[in-house]
Amino acid sequence: MFLNQSLSNSMRNLSQRVKVVASSAAAYSQTAKMLPRVVLCDPVEYQYECKAMFDGVAEVIKIDPSTDRREFIRRLQPGGTLEGVIGLFERNQSIGRIGRFDEDLISELPSSIKWIAHMGAGYDKVDVLACKERGIGVSNTPGAVDDATATTALYLMISALRGFSAAERSLRAGNWNRSHSSESTHDITGRIVAILGLGGIGLRFAELVHAFPMRILYHSRRKVAAAPEWCEHYDKEHLDEMLAQADVLSVHVPYTKETRNIVDETVIRKLKKGAIIVNTARGQVVDEEAMIKALRDGHLSGVGLDVFCNEPNIDRRWYDIPNAVLLPHLGTATADSRKKMELQALRNLCDFVLTGKGADIVPELR
Amino acid sequence: MFLNQSLSNSMRNLSQRVKVVASSAAAYSQTAKMLPRVVLCDPVEYQYECKAMFDGVAEVIKIDPSTDRREFIRRLQPGGTLEGVIGLFERNQSIGRIGRFDEDLISELPSSIKWIAHMGAGYDKVDVLACKERGIGVSNTPGAVDDATATTALYLMISALRGFSAAERSLRAGNWNRSHSSESTHDITGRIVAILGLGGIGLRFAELVHAFPMRILYHSRRKVAAAPEWCEHYDKEHLDEMLAQADVLSVHVPYTKETRNIVDETVIRKLKKGAIIVNTARGQVVDEEAMIKALRDGHLSGVGLDVFCNEPNIDRRWYDIPNAVLLPHLGTATADSRKKMELQALRNLCDFVLTGKGADIVPELR
Repeated sequence: MFLNQSLSNSMRNLSQRVKVVASSAAAYSQTAKMLPRVVLCDPVEYQYECKAMFDGVAEVIKIDPSTDRREFIRRLQPGGTLEGVIGLFERNQSIGRIGRFDEDLISELPSSIKWIAHMGAGYDKVDVLACKERGIGVSNTPGAVDDATATTALYLMISALRGFSAAERSLRAGNWNRSHSSESTHDITGRIVAILGLGGIGLRFAELVHAFPMRILYHSRRKVAAAPEWCEHYDKEHLDEMLAQADVLSVHVPYTKETRNIVDETVIRKLKKGAIIVNTARGQVVDEEAMIKALRDGHLSGVGLDVFCNEPNIDRRWYDIPNAVLLPHLGTATADSRKKMELQALRNLCDFVLTGKGADIVPELR
Repeated sequence: MFLNQSLSNSMRNLSQRVKVVASSAAAYSQTAKMLPRVVLCDPVEYQYECKAMFDGVAEVIKIDPSTDRREFIRRLQPGGTLEGVIGLFERNQSIGRIGRFDEDLISELPSSIKWIAHMGAGYDKVDVLACKERGIGVSNTPGAVDDATATTALYLMISALRGFSAAERSLRAGNWNRSHSSESTHDITGRIVAILGLGGIGLRFAELVHAFPMRILYHSRRKVAAAPEWCEHYDKEHLDEMLAQADVLSVHVPYTKETRNIVDETVIRKLKKGAIIVNTARGQVVDEEAMIKALRDGHLSGVGLDVFCNEPNIDRRWYDIPNAVLLPHLGTATADSRKKMELQALRNLCDFVLTGKGADIVPELR
């Protein structure tokens, strides 16, 4: 133990000394070439593509995953190894030791930083309004995640309507289909789905379920001009009418202060009895307590959830609700989508360096 | 115990006496109205619709689920309570005490019986060739099951490609997404599916996955004239070429002597490494041993199975294969489809009584 500890400490010291040498070399190289500097706050998988993209454009600095918030801020200060960086890359679902890019962290960033390239569609990890005040641009990766997330919603909807998740548990417990009742399960074809938020993911979901077909209703802040005519728009005044018809409510809004608990007790109770809710957006946009209550008293017949209020330590009551389909936030988790997202986020950072702006600047900052 | 046993016996005797009286009354009524007689070998859910359909057409006789094969045959003989019946209704997935309608049972049926109306698309429960020799027509319920079964195949494919079933087990075991690797999971869009058997279910499955889109290849006994141009036909000579391209093989052939183990070791090994197999047809059309071997050695990356060789007592090794999605034969198990199937099977029986033939006579007897 002690021997190992001591060896480990020596290795760490050695490694730190190598890093100091490396970063002095980088500083020299920077001075020589005068390339702008950007920081990868989280690991990048497609290193070859990343290197090729930034070659001759910017010096790319990786930071060690063990770096905590205090050290990160310290290194950004004058004299620190990250002094003078102008942009940052960070990933969604990777709330590491640096933590969320909240108001506190943003206020500590040096004025040289003018861009945060977020990898992911939802960017609630970054306080966009705090960035706005500091003149920091923020980009996300819309489009790249649409297909994978909409497919996840389709899967959750089929499973909840057909009782498949519960049936697989029954089979695996050695009870074959004993717990399954055909009477309480439904074909997808011909049923009515209400989509809350017809952005890229909602629209892709609409395309996939139109194949059955389902009848498709939606509510968005405004009528979506690009939506096909078989997507029926309901404005705020007619929201109740939409909810009363829906067999399925699928939630596709970003998580903001305005959308917190947007699907609350009132909304849930306006759905018709036996409806199901699918959530692939963020746990916080649905009132979990109200949803659990409605499942227990039979108002909802099922739910399909990829997201929860307190991930990964989700409410343990979810395990005991028979027709709850539960996934550990895998909406975008495919090799194909991860690659698309990562390269898109890096492209935004690269474009910022080259042109002063990434293409996917978030709506609040446009 | 003895008291209960004795009470139970008394009840049974009483119940039998009531039945004798009832069937004498039925015999009297039959003589009076001279209606042909048909038998429901399995329970019917939509009794009101059944009664309305056969009203004035045939006398419908229900038999008790406790009736075993020997008693069933005895009651069909001259002097028995089922003497003179001309048609039978029976359900798939309901191999009760009468058992399969195999060669033995068919050979014992009286010559008055000229139709068996099977509820279900697959009719391997009935020995059609034995029926042919005895001049008995057999109908099934094609069409009614297409949507529900194709939806099940879609679900199994998504789950196996995305690793969702395994991820839900990981979450429920308290491990969140620890077992999940994005690198080994795939978007559905743009992948290649090979459909074995482009009948009603295969064609419906093709429609659903075309929405992504996937590229769709198929092999059927013959080119399907009704197939859209985006379904690419591969004949027997080019089967290997189809298999070598497929990310997913989805099986939709009926179970017959010819299709037993049609997906064997050779076929499986011709699929490209990492492919998945989806089976919603019958367990016996795929060589389970070869499939398990290919999963264990990594040739297949996953399977989605609704059917097994020995239902409901399936091979316990399935439980230990990480990326196996397992459903307890629920392909058609929705309230909507069950109703469609039952009424379609009864309609065939009713049409046989009225016209001598049900519309859905099986291909072997056309």
